[in-house]
Amino acid sequence: MEVVKDIKWKKGVRLKDFVTQLANTGYQAVEIGRATDVIVKMKRDKAKIFVTFTSNMMTSGLRGFFAQLVKLKMVNVIITTVGGIEEDIMRATGEKFIISSFNADDVELYEKGLNRIGNLLVSNDSYARFEDTLTQMLKKIYEKKKRIKPSELFKEIGCMLKDKDSLLYQAARNNVPLFCPAVTDGAFGFHLFFFQQNHDDFIVDVVKDFNDMLTCTSYDERKGIIALGGGVSKHYAILITLINGGFDYGVYITSQTPYDGSMSGATTDEAKSWGKIKDNADAVTVIGDATVYFPLVMMRALEELSEEGLIKNG
Amino acid sequence: MEVVKDIKWKKGVRLKDFVTQLANTGYQAVEIGRATDVIVKMKRDKAKIFVTFTSNMMTSGLRGFFAQLVKLKMVNVIITTVGGIEEDIMRATGEKFIISSFNADDVELYEKGLNRIGNLLVSNDSYARFEDTLTQMLKKIYEKKKRIKPSELFKEIGCMLKDKDSLLYQAARNNVPLFCPAVTDGAFGFHLFFFQQNHDDFIVDVVKDFNDMLTCTSYDERKGIIALGGGVSKHYAILITLINGGFDYGVYITSQTPYDGSMSGATTDEAKSWGKIKDNADAVTVIGDATVYFPLVMMRALEELSEEGLIKNG
Amino acid sequence: MEVVKDIKWKKGVRLKDFVTQLANTGYQAVEIGRATDVIVKMKRDKAKIFVTFTSNMMTSGLRGFFAQLVKLKMVNVIITTVGGIEEDIMRATGEKFIISSFNADDVELYEKGLNRIGNLLVSNDSYARFEDTLTQMLKKIYEKKKRIKPSELFKEIGCMLKDKDSLLYQAARNNVPLFCPAVTDGAFGFHLFFFQQNHDDFIVDVVKDFNDMLTCTSYDERKGIIALGGGVSKHYAILITLINGGFDYGVYITSQTPYDGSMSGATTDEAKSWGKIKDNADAVTVIGDATVYFPLVMMRALEELSEEGLIKNG
Amino acid sequence: MEVVKDIKWKKGVRLKDFVTQLANTGYQAVEIGRATDVIVKMKRDKAKIFVTFTSNMMTSGLRGFFAQLVKLKMVNVIITTVGGIEEDIMRATGEKFIISSFNADDVELYEKGLNRIGNLLVSNDSYARFEDTLTQMLKKIYEKKKRIKPSELFKEIGCMLKDKDSLLYQAARNNVPLFCPAVTDGAFGFHLFFFQQNHDDFIVDVVKDFNDMLTCTSYDERKGIIALGGGVSKHYAILITLINGGFDYGVYITSQTPYDGSMSGATTDEAKSWGKIKDNADAVTVIGDATVYFPLVMMRALEELSEEGLIKNG
Repeated sequence: MEVVKDIKWKKGVRLKDFVTQLANTGYQAVEIGRATDVIVKMKRDKAKIFVTFTSNMMTSGLRGFFAQLVKLKMVNVIITTVGGIEEDIMRATGEKFIISSFNADDVELYEKGLNRIGNLLVSNDSYARFEDTLTQMLKKIYEKKKRIKPSELFKEIGCMLKDKDSLLYQAARNNVPLFCPAVTDGAFGFHLFFFQQNHDDFIVDVVKDFNDMLTCTSYDERKGIIALGGGVSKHYAILITLINGGFDYGVYITSQTPYDGSMSGATTDEAKSWGKIKDNADAVTVIGDATVYFPLVMMRALEELSEEGLIKNG
Repeated sequence: MEVVKDIKWKKGVRLKDFVTQLANTGYQAVEIGRATDVIVKMKRDKAKIFVTFTSNMMTSGLRGFFAQLVKLKMVNVIITTVGGIEEDIMRATGEKFIISSFNADDVELYEKGLNRIGNLLVSNDSYARFEDTLTQMLKKIYEKKKRIKPSELFKEIGCMLKDKDSLLYQAARNNVPLFCPAVTDGAFGFHLFFFQQNHDDFIVDVVKDFNDMLTCTSYDERKGIIALGGGVSKHYAILITLINGGFDYGVYITSQTPYDGSMSGATTDEAKSWGKIKDNADAVTVIGDATVYFPLVMMRALEELSEEGLIKNG
Repeated sequence: MEVVKDIKWKKGVRLKDFVTQLANTGYQAVEIGRATDVIVKMKRDKAKIFVTFTSNMMTSGLRGFFAQLVKLKMVNVIITTVGGIEEDIMRATGEKFIISSFNADDVELYEKGLNRIGNLLVSNDSYARFEDTLTQMLKKIYEKKKRIKPSELFKEIGCMLKDKDSLLYQAARNNVPLFCPAVTDGAFGFHLFFFQQNHDDFIVDVVKDFNDMLTCTSYDERKGIIALGGGVSKHYAILITLINGGFDYGVYITSQTPYDGSMSGATTDEAKSWGKIKDNADAVTVIGDATVYFPLVMMRALEELSEEGLIKNG
Repeated sequence: MEVVKDIKWKKGVRLKDFVTQLANTGYQAVEIGRATDVIVKMKRDKAKIFVTFTSNMMTSGLRGFFAQLVKLKMVNVIITTVGGIEEDIMRATGEKFIISSFNADDVELYEKGLNRIGNLLVSNDSYARFEDTLTQMLKKIYEKKKRIKPSELFKEIGCMLKDKDSLLYQAARNNVPLFCPAVTDGAFGFHLFFFQQNHDDFIVDVVKDFNDMLTCTSYDERKGIIALGGGVSKHYAILITLINGGFDYGVYITSQTPYDGSMSGATTDEAKSWGKIKDNADAVTVIGDATVYFPLVMMRALEELSEEGLIKNG
């Protein structure tokens, strides 16, 4: 039986000890402690780890952390939306995203050519340069292959990038598949469409990717899901693992609550009814903003795993 | 200058008068009144109306209301996720979804073969019968066409259905395109994959659908968006209208708030920075559960439009 | 076993039939239907009905609806915070509150002497006139009584008001006690303090009010709670009923969720652990904005009760 | 112009460096960085610091952290609700609160005599022993004083406690006033009532406490507010500072959003319209669970202040 303990500051406190204290504080602090434990178990048990996130997290500084996790072998499969892939490529080719405010004057921003995502800004210029970059890349890829799966497409792009902090770069080099079930839902889709206008035999085969998804894990393997936010990324991961017998470990971090029946707010408990999570699974739902909660949870897990010699040091 | 007025009950009150009163009550009640006005304007101005929603709304009884709206010519373009399409087909072929509780025992449900979505349940049997239905349909479609766009696929399916309360049925018969940017993200995707295993020349061309999306509206046309919930459905609609000059009218109804930078929580104000909404647009964000708010807003608008002779009576 | 049914518009739809349809739609729409049923049962079973709400609801147009409910004998005990009492008095003496926007420019509002509460505005002038009104009232009350309970104070004020849409007016005339556990937390408190400066024997005895709270209901009586929002108002009601054996019926309508352990987000389930709700109680938690949900739920209940002859017509 | 930077793990990372990285990540992570800066400024500028919180935070392990902050001279005025005061006394007299789950079986808990607050449990036995403790204390206090202000009452109790991790203990010994605008809203109120039954001249004078509140700060002094959660505690603090010219620095940490017009969700921007925050104030609203966010923000500020020699080391 765990009891509430008072959290106290000590000069020079390490993140590791801070999260250890949080685990006995209460409410979401407790769930953060539990989420850390589940991630440590995933890795100890050699589970195949699926990490899913929405596009806005790639706009944020989590992008480089995702890349680091791939390098550290903490991720086996990535699922995200195409906006995030665009932004990873932009950052990899030198674009900067600006920190602003949730209350910025949107009409004024529009006049300045700045597009707001929460309290972050991406400029029109960044999108314009992205168009050039992507079009060049598509030409080279088309020369190699006409009928291509989205995951192959991202791997090809990753191989062309030179930024070690890029998720596509690291995923390509570490053989971590990156799936994106809605590949046309963004500027990326627009450029694919434009390219296909002049190359009608260019086919992005989303159905074929389903095969790769299914075979990237097996029924017998232990599986873990770390889902940040909701949407199709989260749904796709639990669908695949469901077909393969459900997952053994689950950590959901979301700012949405379950009261509207949405996938974004769906809890690890609801997943049990589907057989998505095995009923004896270690599963935790943490309610809050993943840009804060995910690095807190994951870095605490990395400290532990590093001490146990299960990952290389960062 | 509008002032707060006291809301009062009168025996036999009509929904129309109720919403009129809400509009002067305060907080989200005010925004509901405003959303109603914006929808009336969309229709009066002959705007092309995009309606987007997440899968969970098709699981709910909103499904037949969406079908009714298509029949009433209140919708010109639909965008949703594939789970909702599956559930519309299930309902159209006789499946029933059960009303349960948010706190149901999920392990017990799993043992009974019942899958929970919020406080609703879908049985494994419904999914099994859906597999048969869809496989038969795919065979027939394949005989007609090998390389098909998702929107064509849904139209073909809609034509095979016989339920007037089905959204696919009404969309097919009223020439309302139904787009789904993540066509493989569900049981539907699994069955497409299975079918392709034996028919390698069967291609679902998501890139080609982008063309249809772009040409379903033009730069000069007035455009309105009604986005229920968030995710790729909402994003896809505002992307398309953005490429075509932004939208003139916008109503977002979402239970998510903007503080995590997510698309689900993105407001109509944020959209202005992108040029998604023209800066002088009539745009309202209502925060709450769309299963309550959307019929409240929309039925009030229908009453008004019916009085003005702009729609047929329900 | 209830199943999902499609909601449909019919010209001239009544609120009563609309809510009946909502009850089979899904998610919060279902909970709204359930909440309506629980309120009908409360009244049928002659339960003593406690209604609690936060100050912001009195700022809104719910204020006159609360007054109407008292007149209709649908409320036996009211608990709220002092800001709402101030605003009821302001409205009763002719002040108007303005409807504005959640995104109004707050610095500009300040310069105009307008104070924002969500998307509503209250002017400095309204507060200034309130000061005069209240000071005159306190003088008269002091002449009658030096040591006074908050609930007596509100009754005296209610007797001096002349506005039939005022909650204090109706509560005073219908012998419905109005409790306020934080009587000094507002402009009201400041004026009490100011008055006591010159009348040191003037005592507002909050402890004595506890006696009235306890004796306003008995252990054997059936009890129902309708809690709108959270805070001390909600807590005080469940505390009192807890001491008196718990409540039999409960409807909580709140926009806050339970994940931070707050009273505002505490569910009717959590209340069972405390014995606040009897474990076989009819209890429903609805998540959403009470300015929309409460009149929807309550007016549907009024229609039913009116048909059953249990209340007078509105 | 700040830009997004990738957050990275480094073995042995300190909390201080972690929050520095968060500040350039995005969304609420950015606001956490800003909140830290505002707290550092408050202290540097010798502002009088008001800290307010809801009862559930004292149930959690934040309780000992609040006590530590008083000892470190980081708090000048405390405002809270009476439930938290009860729980501080319980903990100080040896009671333990149990860590459980948000989905615990509430009927089963009731049968075991355990009361749930989110994912924490307080036993009936703890409440029973609290009754004895408090009754003894009230007797001693009554012998010294018959008409007493709530803040005096808490100070007397604090002097009788022997636990250095108790907030009441530290507040009493460091002359930090503790205000509670709803002193009867809890078991505490019940015991006060019970005591008054036999001692009718025992008066808890809440109006007199208003005087102490007003004079605990002056118009000319710099003032800062740190409000955790909402409710009367938060409202009381901003009311007092408003009367004294508004506050110069504000940090609100709340899990509630502003869309229902509630005090819990009211932002620092809204406060500007009231003149509660001076319009040039350093003010930040962070959306999330204070049990995680507050120690993260405050410990980062303590590290900085300790380096600058402005506080003693923890």
